[in-house]
Amino acid sequence: MTDLKDRAERLRELHGGEMLVLPNAWDAASAAVVAEAGFPAVATASNAIAAMLGYPDGEGAPWQEMFAAAGRVARAVSVPVTVDAEAGYLMQPRELVDRLLEIGAVGCNLEDSDHRAGGLADAEKHAEWLAGVRSAAGDADVPIVINARVDTFLPSSGIPEPERLPEAIRRGRLYREAGADCIYPIAVRSKADIAELVAELPGPVNGNTGEELDLATLRGLGVARVSYGPRFYHAGIAGFRAAVQELRA
Amino acid sequence: MTDLKDRAERLRELHGGEMLVLPNAWDAASAAVVAEAGFPAVATASNAIAAMLGYPDGEGAPWQEMFAAAGRVARAVSVPVTVDAEAGYLMQPRELVDRLLEIGAVGCNLEDSDHRAGGLADAEKHAEWLAGVRSAAGDADVPIVINARVDTFLPSSGIPEPERLPEAIRRGRLYREAGADCIYPIAVRSKADIAELVAELPGPVNGNTGEELDLATLRGLGVARVSYGPRFYHAGIAGFRAAVQELRA
Repeated sequence: MTDLKDRAERLRELHGGEMLVLPNAWDAASAAVVAEAGFPAVATASNAIAAMLGYPDGEGAPWQEMFAAAGRVARAVSVPVTVDAEAGYLMQPRELVDRLLEIGAVGCNLEDSDHRAGGLADAEKHAEWLAGVRSAAGDADVPIVINARVDTFLPSSGIPEPERLPEAIRRGRLYREAGADCIYPIAVRSKADIAELVAELPGPVNGNTGEELDLATLRGLGVARVSYGPRFYHAGIAGFRAAVQELRA
Repeated sequence: MTDLKDRAERLRELHGGEMLVLPNAWDAASAAVVAEAGFPAVATASNAIAAMLGYPDGEGAPWQEMFAAAGRVARAVSVPVTVDAEAGYLMQPRELVDRLLEIGAVGCNLEDSDHRAGGLADAEKHAEWLAGVRSAAGDADVPIVINARVDTFLPSSGIPEPERLPEAIRRGRLYREAGADCIYPIAVRSKADIAELVAELPGPVNGNTGEELDLATLRGLGVARVSYGPRFYHAGIAGFRAAVQELRA
């Protein structure tokens, strides 16, 4: 456990210095690529892993298969690994923490989409569950880094556009209070929105690159962490598709 | 079983018409890409799957994990799937056949490298084992397509260069007699060698593309089946490496 504790602390520290850039991995080889390139941590992308396994995104895969795949990523590198654990697969906090530690992960993304009912989970209930995860991590004596994803900017949230930003701020504050280490409003595309989120949210914010948001811009805006989700995995599959279609022609 | 029997027969028929081209897949998404592009069968690449899982090639991974991964490929498509089963993981013929059918595979590559002792397996003993696989497939009433790989052209075979071709012919004939459906002398790079193999071996021959061997050339030489091994998987990983190094810079 000492090793996991150290890694969790290292991962947390990485949210307080240079902007942490996480090109998400999906298997052992891609994880090794990230670590060998010198990145100080590796994050998984659940969307990519679900696609690899043949299941739809959004908790479409059995958690056993998702955790086994994430475990292969963790086994491949010695830097801290943070796992995209979707909305937590309906697990109780302690079970989630145990499963993460079991595979060698010391951080997780936890999103507030409700994959069964559709739309977003109730913010207060989700914050309570996050507090449970925080507390279970304390009980396990490994200060797992919780990256609380806020899904208001996703079309699937059902949140009307003008309410997306204020609702993200409201939720982010709740989750931070509940013990999240970092707030991740996914799919924020505008400079103005991400700037306001950084200003209004206490603690580190996870952003994404995009048309108006390159790494330098995100760094300038004070974003603490940048991740890419399944982008690189899908780029690889797109390259394969092009090669295969050329062979077929 | 009827469905598997039909698929096995379909796969066998594909060795008798147009040259069968198999851009090898490694996961569910890549398998779907191959099937959606219109290829009539999907082959796995064990080297790619081992890399995904974080193990060295050459039976470095537990067979359970290799078969589970191959099963995800088979589950993703409705066309026949042939599994690169390395040297058969020391399984008895019937066990191998049962494991293949269990995951929905109707064909397999079986190589004559000896991953424990190094170099090549004894040809006569390997032929006997292949005959056992043929007979076990008969007992299971699914005519699994056996692609018998001949590894003399691999440097790891320890076969001196001038003996590679005659030894490949000798082995290929033995394996064909033992009931293999197709002979796969891997890593043949010259036009002359592959031409002689096609002429001297009874039954279909599996080739690889290379500098002097494009698809049209292989087709002209009478090659029945072409596969790519882990080439596309590693191309994807190389693309990811380049992207990640650029991010780091």
